[in-house]
Amino acid sequence: MTKNSEIRLLGTVASPYVNRVQFVCNLKSIDYEFVAENLACKSELLLTSNPIHKKVPVLLHANESPTCESLVIIQYLEEIKPDVHPIFPSAPAERANNRFWAHYIDNQFFPLYEKLRITQGKERKEAIKQEIIEGSIVLEEAFVKTSKGKAYFGGDDVGFLDVVLGCFLSWTYFVEKENKFKIFDEVRTPRLVEWTKRIWSHEAIKSVIPTNEIISEFYMMLQKYRPLGA
Amino acid sequence: MTKNSEIRLLGTVASPYVNRVQFVCNLKSIDYEFVAENLACKSELLLTSNPIHKKVPVLLHANESPTCESLVIIQYLEEIKPDVHPIFPSAPAERANNRFWAHYIDNQFFPLYEKLRITQGKERKEAIKQEIIEGSIVLEEAFVKTSKGKAYFGGDDVGFLDVVLGCFLSWTYFVEKENKFKIFDEVRTPRLVEWTKRIWSHEAIKSVIPTNEIISEFYMMLQKYRPLGA
Repeated sequence: MTKNSEIRLLGTVASPYVNRVQFVCNLKSIDYEFVAENLACKSELLLTSNPIHKKVPVLLHANESPTCESLVIIQYLEEIKPDVHPIFPSAPAERANNRFWAHYIDNQFFPLYEKLRITQGKERKEAIKQEIIEGSIVLEEAFVKTSKGKAYFGGDDVGFLDVVLGCFLSWTYFVEKENKFKIFDEVRTPRLVEWTKRIWSHEAIKSVIPTNEIISEFYMMLQKYRPLGA
Repeated sequence: MTKNSEIRLLGTVASPYVNRVQFVCNLKSIDYEFVAENLACKSELLLTSNPIHKKVPVLLHANESPTCESLVIIQYLEEIKPDVHPIFPSAPAERANNRFWAHYIDNQFFPLYEKLRITQGKERKEAIKQEIIEGSIVLEEAFVKTSKGKAYFGGDDVGFLDVVLGCFLSWTYFVEKENKFKIFDEVRTPRLVEWTKRIWSHEAIKSVIPTNEIISEFYMMLQKYRPLGA
């Protein structure tokens, strides 16, 4: 179905949303050309492919219109190559459960990392850390219910939610070090701690996860363009 | 597939997100019991069914776990009853296009109505009105591309995006009157003006669309609980 260079991915290696798409391409053995974007000086191709948001990732597939937004893209990849490593469960109620938690992760959980970065004042930062910890406990419960005692949200292997949450792991590690607290820990979130180790060493994922140096550099750029208190 | 009372919908008739689910139930001839919620005093059933957001709509289907979030619910309904009035196109690229615009409507366009409500000061309100008008032009372009010259986003009949945007029509009318400006008009958005008339008179939709009195009452409640400048 997919030949070399039939699919191009506009992205940057530090973006968790781009990493999601890379994970799914790897899981499904979809060849793609990675077109590196400089977010401080976006290409004409990016601006014309995603005029609404002007953001990565953008997927260009043969003669189709560009596909934007990471969750939209990975559902698209699932639909064009459903037989190789399906990332969604087949039961409608389980698929709904997956979509619900993806929405929670993208709209409530991960935005707290950015809120923590731009917030000033020790007390206000501590309050956000507490919100993140409460979110991690919610995610632990979601993991227990969704994985049904297996290794991943997706069961015996990586599925949709593993990709959706897994892309934030290197950011989690960075935010923990930067702010001197633990987000996932043995006491509060033991299952997610185990899951984290499995994700880090998974064949389709480990080559994509950005290094701490890459995250650090990206963080510096954020500080420059979207400063504290912005 | 669905018997009377096998499906219960927790909702309030003024909520556009609840209306979406009602539209799709009507389109697919899915019988359901409407369980009216008082948002000023939420039921135990709502709080336990949607502990994360504590919001309507919630769909309860037989022995399945509750399904929350309107977009998740309508995709679930599509998957449990795919053969009656499918709301998604079959081509993956078109499905991706539908999901992209749904995201735009929910995360960028409609939140501007609330932003307009809570913002004070004539100049700042005018700036938000301008943003809404720009958004309506973006949606007109999306309609032209997606409908391919047909009557609805979904082609010859109502589809996913017709439901997603259509649920905001009575709010649009209310916001226009309240703020003395036109959101969809003959000059800037002629195709959407025509589309609006079709949606208002569509069999599956017209009985669900809340009256101006219902919207007005709900707006008063919002003013009370989430006042200006909140």
